[in-house]
Amino acid sequence: MTPHALVLAGGRGTRFWPLSRRARPKQVLAVGGGESLLARTLARVSGLAEGAVVVTGPDMEAAVRAESGGARVIVEPSGRNTLPAIAWGALVAAEHGADTVIVLPSDHHVSRPEALREALAEAISLAQSGTLVTLGVKPTRAETGFGWIEADGNRVARFVEKPPQAVADSLYLGGRHLWNAGMFVFRVDAFRAALSRHAPATAAALDRIAGGEPVATCWSSMDATSIDYAVMEKHDDVRVVPLDCGWSDVGSWTALDELVVAGPGGALVCAERVAIEASGNLVHAEGKLVALVGVHDLVVVDTPDALLVMRRDEAQRAREVLADLDARGLSRYT
Amino acid sequence: MTPHALVLAGGRGTRFWPLSRRARPKQVLAVGGGESLLARTLARVSGLAEGAVVVTGPDMEAAVRAESGGARVIVEPSGRNTLPAIAWGALVAAEHGADTVIVLPSDHHVSRPEALREALAEAISLAQSGTLVTLGVKPTRAETGFGWIEADGNRVARFVEKPPQAVADSLYLGGRHLWNAGMFVFRVDAFRAALSRHAPATAAALDRIAGGEPVATCWSSMDATSIDYAVMEKHDDVRVVPLDCGWSDVGSWTALDELVVAGPGGALVCAERVAIEASGNLVHAEGKLVALVGVHDLVVVDTPDALLVMRRDEAQRAREVLADLDARGLSRYT
Repeated sequence: MTPHALVLAGGRGTRFWPLSRRARPKQVLAVGGGESLLARTLARVSGLAEGAVVVTGPDMEAAVRAESGGARVIVEPSGRNTLPAIAWGALVAAEHGADTVIVLPSDHHVSRPEALREALAEAISLAQSGTLVTLGVKPTRAETGFGWIEADGNRVARFVEKPPQAVADSLYLGGRHLWNAGMFVFRVDAFRAALSRHAPATAAALDRIAGGEPVATCWSSMDATSIDYAVMEKHDDVRVVPLDCGWSDVGSWTALDELVVAGPGGALVCAERVAIEASGNLVHAEGKLVALVGVHDLVVVDTPDALLVMRRDEAQRAREVLADLDARGLSRYT
Repeated sequence: MTPHALVLAGGRGTRFWPLSRRARPKQVLAVGGGESLLARTLARVSGLAEGAVVVTGPDMEAAVRAESGGARVIVEPSGRNTLPAIAWGALVAAEHGADTVIVLPSDHHVSRPEALREALAEAISLAQSGTLVTLGVKPTRAETGFGWIEADGNRVARFVEKPPQAVADSLYLGGRHLWNAGMFVFRVDAFRAALSRHAPATAAALDRIAGGEPVATCWSSMDATSIDYAVMEKHDDVRVVPLDCGWSDVGSWTALDELVVAGPGGALVCAERVAIEASGNLVHAEGKLVALVGVHDLVVVDTPDALLVMRRDEAQRAREVLADLDARGLSRYT
């Protein structure tokens, strides 16, 4: 078998503004310091995958190429959710020798990469029978922001869409559910067969691309939907491999806690720090001295041209800042 | 008469850290944006004064020279409070043609310079009789951090040292007291005569300097004390000119309110701003976009190598940050 990584790097990640920008999305950033999330994603599967395809969008192509090392970068004409990106990416991987693909988001964090590699190896092995395999993250809280997977042995009994809090509570306490983290492993032929059954328009468009037609002219015929909704939730033979690898979707600045070891004052990415009666803060000010006095539960993000200071429990409102800037003709900051 | 300005620019101004540093004290900074406090001080008296002497210390000499325009800059061997600086500065001014000096701190703000110039003109005229003249700022609050002046007509009845709150309250309500803002006008001969009476050691050292002895060898014989304590409070003929010119001593970041017109989110020095449910903040992030979400009454100071975030009512504690940095061998930031 010849598995290739298929890394999805088309997301914008506005919630990491002002570090993230239109041309410099979350996946190319060193959120938490060090290498970019994308570079770390590729490094985690090197050795396991014999090749890698990175799918991205036109706005961010340059930044994504710079973080993709030796991987093949393909640029989708427009963002149409995960199904077209994975379908085209799997085709490109197969054209370059892959029989199996490992689909990975490019913007997540894993604190124990070895555990991820072991789970992926198991998933690759399982996928050889022709089943579609998903990885299910062992939950650590009753999260309403993720889809959940009900496992019955290694079979997926049911996908649960983002649940309300009461449901999330019972899923978490029940112990039979895992988080859907958007990581999948399957043989390319098995996936294309499933695509033909569940998403025939996308399958037909993919056949035309395989036959030599330009992606640009086929793209709009593909279903602008997620692989979960279009295929995984409908397919009758989906397996799940549980995963306990210190995973974080790095969904907003509040995830800095999961990426950075907290010290005095909170979780800080900085050169030096002084904290006087300060706690629970999340600060990204790479290379700077950060001094915090009497402040708690703030998010502070410092970049060369912008500075964001917000209450931690208001972190979702960073989007309003972007909307305001765009409305005022200040898109150079977004 | 030939008045010269005598500008005291030896203070360190640690309370403006991290914008202020050992080699870049408050007076050379554009606190509130625009020109430095020192450059604005000199500009305010141009025309009124026919020359200017700036007294500073060795650490900050380069930065002070850069902000002093055509003024003569003299460097005291070490900081010994205001008396030696004023004594030597007055001598140097006299050697270059001054008969009268206008003593001015270099790090204060004046929002109505014309009112200051009128008061100084009156003080210069009054000083020609040989009296020592002080300017008394009309108080706008019961401030305990300043000395006060009890006026009896244009005579100073009494200097009041920094009073406790109850006393400050009654001084403010009584309406007969003014703030001592460290601005003085006197004839050089009258000042030297007063010095001989009230601070003979300093007067003798000054005579030796006048006779050609190097400042360095005379400096330690001068009284390391303030002109207020050594001369003004003891002299029997001191006059006061009231001053109402939108004065601020710019004593800490909380004074940014007095220097910058407040807008959404607070008083901000920045290129652009977005404020969502934010108020009462003081931000210095020159040239940057500043976005504030859900934060109130913070002081935020952004510089190329350091970022300070503190509660506004903790602003006095910035000193503790400096002490901590020095103790940890991080003096490159102080």
